[in-house]
Amino acid sequence: MLIVQKYGGTSVGTLERIEAVAQRVAKTRAEGHDVVVVVSAMSGETNKLIEYAEYFSKNPKQREMDMLLSSGERVTSALLAIALTEKNCPAVAFSGRQAGIVTDEVHTKARIDHIDTKRMKEDLKAGNVIVVAGFQGVTLSGEVSTLGRGGSDLSAVAVAGALEADVCEIYTDVDGVYTTDPRIEPKAKKLDKISYEEMLELASLGAKVLQNRSVELAKKLNVNLVTRSSFNDNPGTLITKEENIMEQPLVSGVALDRNQARITLRGVTDKPGIAAEIFTTLANCNINVDMIIQNVGHDGTTNLGFTVPENELGIARKAIDELQPANTVEYDSEIVKVSVVGVGMKSHSGVASRAFQTMADEGINIEMISTSEIKISMVVHRKYGELAVRALHKAYGLEE
Amino acid sequence: MLIVQKYGGTSVGTLERIEAVAQRVAKTRAEGHDVVVVVSAMSGETNKLIEYAEYFSKNPKQREMDMLLSSGERVTSALLAIALTEKNCPAVAFSGRQAGIVTDEVHTKARIDHIDTKRMKEDLKAGNVIVVAGFQGVTLSGEVSTLGRGGSDLSAVAVAGALEADVCEIYTDVDGVYTTDPRIEPKAKKLDKISYEEMLELASLGAKVLQNRSVELAKKLNVNLVTRSSFNDNPGTLITKEENIMEQPLVSGVALDRNQARITLRGVTDKPGIAAEIFTTLANCNINVDMIIQNVGHDGTTNLGFTVPENELGIARKAIDELQPANTVEYDSEIVKVSVVGVGMKSHSGVASRAFQTMADEGINIEMISTSEIKISMVVHRKYGELAVRALHKAYGLEE
Repeated sequence: MLIVQKYGGTSVGTLERIEAVAQRVAKTRAEGHDVVVVVSAMSGETNKLIEYAEYFSKNPKQREMDMLLSSGERVTSALLAIALTEKNCPAVAFSGRQAGIVTDEVHTKARIDHIDTKRMKEDLKAGNVIVVAGFQGVTLSGEVSTLGRGGSDLSAVAVAGALEADVCEIYTDVDGVYTTDPRIEPKAKKLDKISYEEMLELASLGAKVLQNRSVELAKKLNVNLVTRSSFNDNPGTLITKEENIMEQPLVSGVALDRNQARITLRGVTDKPGIAAEIFTTLANCNINVDMIIQNVGHDGTTNLGFTVPENELGIARKAIDELQPANTVEYDSEIVKVSVVGVGMKSHSGVASRAFQTMADEGINIEMISTSEIKISMVVHRKYGELAVRALHKAYGLEE
Repeated sequence: MLIVQKYGGTSVGTLERIEAVAQRVAKTRAEGHDVVVVVSAMSGETNKLIEYAEYFSKNPKQREMDMLLSSGERVTSALLAIALTEKNCPAVAFSGRQAGIVTDEVHTKARIDHIDTKRMKEDLKAGNVIVVAGFQGVTLSGEVSTLGRGGSDLSAVAVAGALEADVCEIYTDVDGVYTTDPRIEPKAKKLDKISYEEMLELASLGAKVLQNRSVELAKKLNVNLVTRSSFNDNPGTLITKEENIMEQPLVSGVALDRNQARITLRGVTDKPGIAAEIFTTLANCNINVDMIIQNVGHDGTTNLGFTVPENELGIARKAIDELQPANTVEYDSEIVKVSVVGVGMKSHSGVASRAFQTMADEGINIEMISTSEIKISMVVHRKYGELAVRALHKAYGLEE
């Protein structure tokens, strides 16, 4: 098998941790697999370098930020290759450039254009483990670029896709994807498998294991992703396409998103273009509007409700105050969003009604509802968030 | 003018120091000069990275060491370019690769093959200050390489030579080159100018300002070197070709080399090839033999004396014990070497005799003598080292 393994910042946070990673990689190689490793900077390094840059400038030059920030991953890749070679596991460290990761010219948040795999294939053929500095690439014009937050995951998925690897293992400090946050519901279970689509929903709902960009790319490139812990030997969670999951559970997980606030516009003039104006304004402020609900109005006006991330409420408020799109505007940050996610609900009826019934049984008022093919999201008062999660987790039998 | 400025590890050792360097560079630019800056890693960084590597391996892979060690200079160059741009002094950070510094394939001690100045010239023309990560280059086959200790000085001199810069300023934490070590003789004076040849002699005699590799390259490329302090505005010392120095002093400086030990072989068979055998053996052990004196012998044997660095005496001893080239071998580490250096002595007689007379006046026994066109070196007992330096400094009028 050709296995791509990606180790995040905490997994390579100390020299002892890097040594442990080297042992794991050498073991995988000794089992007969070809291995490409993608590493992050040692935890804390990237933030340290950002602080350094901010000492000199509130708005540092992005081209130079990329040269600065890309150094952390280079250090880790060199150290891991040295550690591996010492274990008689021949290894070479590659910068993003040497790994052939070519990006567009957008410094600090570049997108991967393509990967030139020639050199990696040569080194794999020669029996070397390849240790790629994650998070970075080289632009078409030859400059160092970085891929933004979560960029090392993205490097790993892209490399796995380009090399048609059998699996891309993402190592972090958690065991995998859970049916819900174990800090809320101790009976939460680790999932063996989950589809890309479900993972995308869960990730956007606050499951911190993987960023959506990486899952989307894995889906696009058809890469089998495994998220697992570098601190133990548990098998982790496979994220793959729906067809690869034989027995689809009705519901895979329950998520709680606390970073939510609701804005309600009352008495919005009910004419074409008004909603577009509001949401274009918010988009221009880089605010991610989430749930949007418009009720049928009367007297030529309508009511419009939507949620935004709570930490963006201040900016949103300012933008709306300037626009004055409605008679009255209400802001409510005392809400959370509870979601039930499952590919199985596509082919089953009654999944949504069970959620609503569960809320009713617990005496929880549902303030907003939004559904997709594989997700039911409900806005409830902040104080009911954890209770709602536990009740839904039980109602869908996730603890079994 | 086109000015190359190189800042060493202590000059960029903290963020505050980098800010001070940015001010100096911006000032130079504001005076209308074109500026290329070459930077070292922040002091301590390179040693930290070496320690990291040694945690994993006593003999780490050299290709990976180069990727590891080159990261420190990249960080400094990015930070300085950010600091400069913030001061409305447009600047770009270049890795060794981007600066066009092409080396041979010898990792960790590469030699510069040539410099492709195209990109630097373009950026200078565009009005940018160029901040080059020192100490590093790219091999002809595209790998990251480093130039070994003192490599950043070498980068600066090579860049200055390739761009035909008017001057190459090497900033450290000392004011320049002194007539002797001010810790030994407080009356030591900073030299305004000194020839390459004198600097080479002084450097090899323990003056730590510059490494010989850099001075040799400056001489070869005819680069005007200035060594000065980044902690004040003193003008420093110009190191240039002899013809540029109008008034040649008889003697430019007095140096003391404490890292010396003497080996005396008595009763060496006086036949062709015996000296070659001895010194080839020592060379194979990487021992730098310095002064060599062979006396006329009798009875078909001769006496051979030479000095080696004191810290290499153990290895030398082992090699000679195996070779058994003489009847008796004496080892003496209780010696030092005192040297008088001056281009002026080429055209003046009596310079050497004044040195010997000075030693005699102080009651110091000279144990070995070696002279070159511009240098007189004397081996004396360790206890007389500082006294000899002060007496010679006075005898040649260096304190005036």
